[in-house]
Amino acid sequence: VITSSASAAVIEKGNHRHFMEKEIYEQPIVVAQTLGAYVDPLAETISLPPLPFDLAGVKRVQIVACGTALLAGQVATYWLESLARIPVQIENASEFRYRDPVYEPGGLALFISQSGETADTLAALRHAKAGGQHIAAVVNVASSTMAREADLLLPTHAGPEIGVASTKAFTCQLAVLAAFAIALGKAKGRVTPVEEARLVHLLTEIPAAMNEALKTEESIHALALPLSKARDILYIGRGPDYPMALEGALKLKEISYIHAEGYAAGELKHGPIALIDENVPVIVIAPSGPRFEKTVSNMQEVMARGGLVYLLSDAAGLAEHGAGTAATIEMPSVDPFISPLITAIPVQLLAYHVALAKGTDVDQPRNLAKSVTVE
Amino acid sequence: VITSSASAAVIEKGNHRHFMEKEIYEQPIVVAQTLGAYVDPLAETISLPPLPFDLAGVKRVQIVACGTALLAGQVATYWLESLARIPVQIENASEFRYRDPVYEPGGLALFISQSGETADTLAALRHAKAGGQHIAAVVNVASSTMAREADLLLPTHAGPEIGVASTKAFTCQLAVLAAFAIALGKAKGRVTPVEEARLVHLLTEIPAAMNEALKTEESIHALALPLSKARDILYIGRGPDYPMALEGALKLKEISYIHAEGYAAGELKHGPIALIDENVPVIVIAPSGPRFEKTVSNMQEVMARGGLVYLLSDAAGLAEHGAGTAATIEMPSVDPFISPLITAIPVQLLAYHVALAKGTDVDQPRNLAKSVTVE
Repeated sequence: VITSSASAAVIEKGNHRHFMEKEIYEQPIVVAQTLGAYVDPLAETISLPPLPFDLAGVKRVQIVACGTALLAGQVATYWLESLARIPVQIENASEFRYRDPVYEPGGLALFISQSGETADTLAALRHAKAGGQHIAAVVNVASSTMAREADLLLPTHAGPEIGVASTKAFTCQLAVLAAFAIALGKAKGRVTPVEEARLVHLLTEIPAAMNEALKTEESIHALALPLSKARDILYIGRGPDYPMALEGALKLKEISYIHAEGYAAGELKHGPIALIDENVPVIVIAPSGPRFEKTVSNMQEVMARGGLVYLLSDAAGLAEHGAGTAATIEMPSVDPFISPLITAIPVQLLAYHVALAKGTDVDQPRNLAKSVTVE
Repeated sequence: VITSSASAAVIEKGNHRHFMEKEIYEQPIVVAQTLGAYVDPLAETISLPPLPFDLAGVKRVQIVACGTALLAGQVATYWLESLARIPVQIENASEFRYRDPVYEPGGLALFISQSGETADTLAALRHAKAGGQHIAAVVNVASSTMAREADLLLPTHAGPEIGVASTKAFTCQLAVLAAFAIALGKAKGRVTPVEEARLVHLLTEIPAAMNEALKTEESIHALALPLSKARDILYIGRGPDYPMALEGALKLKEISYIHAEGYAAGELKHGPIALIDENVPVIVIAPSGPRFEKTVSNMQEVMARGGLVYLLSDAAGLAEHGAGTAATIEMPSVDPFISPLITAIPVQLLAYHVALAKGTDVDQPRNLAKSVTVE
């Protein structure tokens, strides 16, 4: 157990009904704080903490985490591969540590944990360190064991997170990982100064876009009651929206006890589409962008089988394909690079309002602990 | 559409109620047939078809597939990494092809598809070929497009599979992948002749162990009615039993329309355990072996929260930890190397009998096509 240095006043709920709601609303600020530690907004450059190893020599990245932190890592695989053009693998910590993984020279192993104490993740970190890998850790508690044992500490500045279901820690992890991907891309000679400036500028747009996304709360509140009657829900997306679909499903599971499951949209027809009838709502994450039409085509397969679709997209996407859905949620229109951080907000609000409609204990869901320090 | 050369007589149901049941029962024979093409049982060696590239030069493996074939691939990642000690990645085809994956020299891309025509997998194969990767394909239809376009064709000899939910094609894929993993390990100098002989001997034990596993049908039949009342089911396992848990869940989804979900046992406490109450049965795949105690500890977490556990293990495992479960299914005791092929049988029988109890159309489940030739 880590004793936080935050005063009691900092961890009161303020005007919010639950810590989870408060923490959802804090995200524009804590993500800005976190980015502030990595971004020079005037020079439009990324700067990392001092590195005890040469970033240019990193030949591959292995990400290891559990739960929501694992999904932040899964979003990051897209950023890292596309910006640094090196292979990136990801695995949950409880599998990774018992698999006798292959370590190669020049490998960077990156661990993500809000508490920095997650038992499986910490054991995996020590395994990778013994295997000669460079160790980076994205943690929210700077005094944690993982923070101490990492070669490269990449802190998030989310402040104490009290709600058991992670929200602000998740988006702060995403912010750090996006910044790190730019830095790695630069070190590998794949991201030019012009591209770095463009990407950094996009990062600085995140807090305002998050504020905009918080305005979806009213329309999400209106959907919560019908969705709360569902016993099963599917969440689908492609690319970085696939881990966001997994995250949406995980949040619903954690606090509303609805059996929600996330799927890569293209995999639906290889089995899970058999589940679809009018009793299984399908939430489709499809912001405008390179994968929009492909996801819409999977959405139409669902609709053709009588499934109720809830479409989460931006104004352009909804104008094109919102018709025929059960409901739509309009996100702000942002560049695909930063869209996972913006999508996170309606995804969290949806779980929160469905849980409220069901009357579950949002901040202390049954069976769960905030930080899992047993295997 | 591929016209099979099999005569009509071959694809009748015989004494079985459904093609799926017939195909489940054919597995000892078709797996033996398939292994026969790769194994010299007297010399206890593996032989592959002629190779147009040097297997010793393979530096990493990328597996790409969809649906059940993807899960065969996921089991194979454990075999390939442990026997060849090179990094193995796996991804579903619909994600892989749109991700602009990083290709490195010496990479082998391995595609798995019963039909050899799965649209996403075929497109991914062509993408990897254009990216300079060696291409291997595990397919059941030797005249298929993937068979023609691969550098190395690794056929399964399952015969025509009529049931939409894959059974015998899956275990034949596993058989080929296990043989290939031994061959790659040998080529990389990691599998000695003595070890090869030991592993080949284990492969030759599979058909008899499968016959033994078919005897679980009676005890599974007895569980089917209570399980068929469940709206939601979780399936958990560790290591190669994790993809087997995913496969068990997929089979239940496909033919019984129960919302079953597979989870890595160690991830359960990072969220999904919130779902657990007396209405969500948890099926635990835990044969004796190196991961048994860890999985049992996750099972006990479920039981401590009032969850109903169905334990699938061998006699030794059940003797040790069968007490307190809702029911047990006793598999034959086999070496961990071949256990996924044996576990497949009760997992398939369970989905089949639950579907029978529900009265769904086992061979032609709603919303699904046998071979998905659209994206």
